[in-house]
Amino acid sequence: MTADHTAQDTPLRDYMAGLGARARAASSQLSRVGETERTRGLNAMASAVDAARGEILRANAVDMQLGQQKGLDAALMDRLALDDKRVDAMAAGLRTVAGLDDPIGRELARWTRPNGLDIARIACPLGVIGIIYESRPNVTADAAALCLRSGNAAILRCGSESLNSSTAIAAAMRDALAGEGLPADAVQLVETNDRAAVGHMLAGLDGQMDVVVPRGGRGLVSRVQDEARIPVIGHLEGICHAYVDASADPQTAIDVVFNAKMRRPGICGALETLLVDRSVAADLLPRIARPLLDAGCELRGDEAARTHCREMEPASEADWNTEHLAPILGVRVVDGLEGALQHIRTFSSGHTDSVIAEDQAVCERFLAEIDSAIVMANASTQFADGGEFGMGAEIGIATGRIHARGPVGAEQLTIFKYVVRGTGQTRP
Amino acid sequence: MTADHTAQDTPLRDYMAGLGARARAASSQLSRVGETERTRGLNAMASAVDAARGEILRANAVDMQLGQQKGLDAALMDRLALDDKRVDAMAAGLRTVAGLDDPIGRELARWTRPNGLDIARIACPLGVIGIIYESRPNVTADAAALCLRSGNAAILRCGSESLNSSTAIAAAMRDALAGEGLPADAVQLVETNDRAAVGHMLAGLDGQMDVVVPRGGRGLVSRVQDEARIPVIGHLEGICHAYVDASADPQTAIDVVFNAKMRRPGICGALETLLVDRSVAADLLPRIARPLLDAGCELRGDEAARTHCREMEPASEADWNTEHLAPILGVRVVDGLEGALQHIRTFSSGHTDSVIAEDQAVCERFLAEIDSAIVMANASTQFADGGEFGMGAEIGIATGRIHARGPVGAEQLTIFKYVVRGTGQTRP
Repeated sequence: MTADHTAQDTPLRDYMAGLGARARAASSQLSRVGETERTRGLNAMASAVDAARGEILRANAVDMQLGQQKGLDAALMDRLALDDKRVDAMAAGLRTVAGLDDPIGRELARWTRPNGLDIARIACPLGVIGIIYESRPNVTADAAALCLRSGNAAILRCGSESLNSSTAIAAAMRDALAGEGLPADAVQLVETNDRAAVGHMLAGLDGQMDVVVPRGGRGLVSRVQDEARIPVIGHLEGICHAYVDASADPQTAIDVVFNAKMRRPGICGALETLLVDRSVAADLLPRIARPLLDAGCELRGDEAARTHCREMEPASEADWNTEHLAPILGVRVVDGLEGALQHIRTFSSGHTDSVIAEDQAVCERFLAEIDSAIVMANASTQFADGGEFGMGAEIGIATGRIHARGPVGAEQLTIFKYVVRGTGQTRP
Repeated sequence: MTADHTAQDTPLRDYMAGLGARARAASSQLSRVGETERTRGLNAMASAVDAARGEILRANAVDMQLGQQKGLDAALMDRLALDDKRVDAMAAGLRTVAGLDDPIGRELARWTRPNGLDIARIACPLGVIGIIYESRPNVTADAAALCLRSGNAAILRCGSESLNSSTAIAAAMRDALAGEGLPADAVQLVETNDRAAVGHMLAGLDGQMDVVVPRGGRGLVSRVQDEARIPVIGHLEGICHAYVDASADPQTAIDVVFNAKMRRPGICGALETLLVDRSVAADLLPRIARPLLDAGCELRGDEAARTHCREMEPASEADWNTEHLAPILGVRVVDGLEGALQHIRTFSSGHTDSVIAEDQAVCERFLAEIDSAIVMANASTQFADGGEFGMGAEIGIATGRIHARGPVGAEQLTIFKYVVRGTGQTRP
């Protein structure tokens, strides 16, 4: 199976416009389909991916060979690689989404006006969602599934290195949809490596794409946020903070900070900056630092922090502004809650920030005043995840100000309309 | 009072950046303020507008004189004019918003995870809202009030013709806020007529503006939608439809269609296209047409419609695509519900569409399948209004696909954050 059979023969603009028009038509068909059909479609997609594993693994082998020729680094090659276990996980992921509550048609509010008009706010799909992602081929299945669960048509733009794998996965899912009488075009892959295709998506495909979701590194997200002419759901970076208050339980502080940084230092919910109340820094900072240093974490402290822990490197101003995504942690001594709030307001990227304190008044003020997508008390920032929130699956974390913030699951891929039922009312 | 004392002395870019920075600071302060303070601020704004009526009417007299010199047409001059009654209405509008339910801090959802994490979704302000509007000076008060009710800072860009009036109104409201210990910069007016100021707002003031709301004619909204690099809440046009089914109660059809078109033909919820089921057109169309024609409404019908009503002009394809905002109505005979759905899917602007039918199955299919911000059964499209929906006040109607659709009131000017309360949980 080769990937770019279609686009190479067709001018890019027409090709992209065709994707948009077919997605819009599929979205319109999907809006007339019920929960049962969407669930059946998702289960059929799972079975199809399972059944097509031969084709998928062969296509992946082509991608892996091309990747080796291009000299992709080991981390990228690992993300790209598929094997039976990963195909199993992909099919299982599709079945998980099939089992999620269907968010469409929910009655979000309903009231009756004095004139008898019955007004209901009803959840409905966003429409056509573009997803632009990088090397992991499983995103092809995950993103398509969440879009279908929420009644949306998906236009998927994978990383160039996974185009063969993603094409095979998408083909299996499209066949499954058609087999269930659902529109195959609810799932479309951009089958070209032409980088200009992304530009068409960011321009909104002449009104045929409603929102774009970037999933990947800073370079990708930054380009999408800068160039998109349609709404973007996503986040650029996660500069997450933990503030250890004077009232903190020491063991909680030690455990939560260690977990927040070291469980997986490379995820967006990983801790990047630790703030410690000056009044307990002498006692607590060395005890928090010890296990981090022992685990190979580099600590970069301000002057006050370094007086309490000589093994810290000096922090520069840039450290407060940097998402390291690595075992590196900025450490700063602050003057109580007020100092922590001020630091976080200045440097937070609005992703996830946590307070560690036994004093409930301190916790509640932190939770009320820090304006991030997720604020936590006495919990690891690594919980910033749709699965951990109980959403079943997520398409990412949003730090924008409108539509949705935090983990974006099927429910967040919906909007609403008003349904007004009357008995002949006219407006005076 | 003159309007452009600040901007003339300051390069525009710095001036706009200053507005943005002060708005962001005010937004941050507002997020730490409670419902009671916001309500007190709104009531103080009402009293201040009342008390400043001398200054406001003098400033308005300057605008009216300038408008006459510029040769503004009568309709524009009427929208621009203030008198005691209109100042009363402005103050009353502020008091109405003061009395609305405060949307901030509402618990939208809350659940506990198996690991004991307590997760709540809490409503919070959007942040900084830019409002770009045209001649009516009262929008200065209305928009500022809705923003403050929802904890947002407002940057207001009025039409050039109302700059003196709007400056006087904004000055009164800012004084009132300061007098209550609230940030005056929660309400800022762009005090320059330089059209480039709008460009800065549409670019998002270097990240200091979160969303822009255009209020005005097609030219303004279209420019905002085309050029904005930040999310837009609004609508370009309201091409609203009514479909009269074979099962319609004749008198309901006659009354609802007349009201939907003629109550106020110039509002966005006014009917623009009437679709009548072929099987009842011969009987019903002349009866619906008669009162419209008698009231001076021009009817433009397709061929089938004109066979039933010879007083109709012939409709062109453009009529199905045009928001007349005038006593002109397109009329088309369609083949039942299916024909109506097809016409509306093709031509609707996604604002408001209504079905008139006694057959509940027809109503429910129409309500389910038409994907507009507002869908109605047996009610006039002129009910498409925040006040009529019971929201107390609205900043406009949104027809976009994300964040909010339909009337945008204080509740729709909010977003949410997740508040997670733990007891030391770490992620395995």
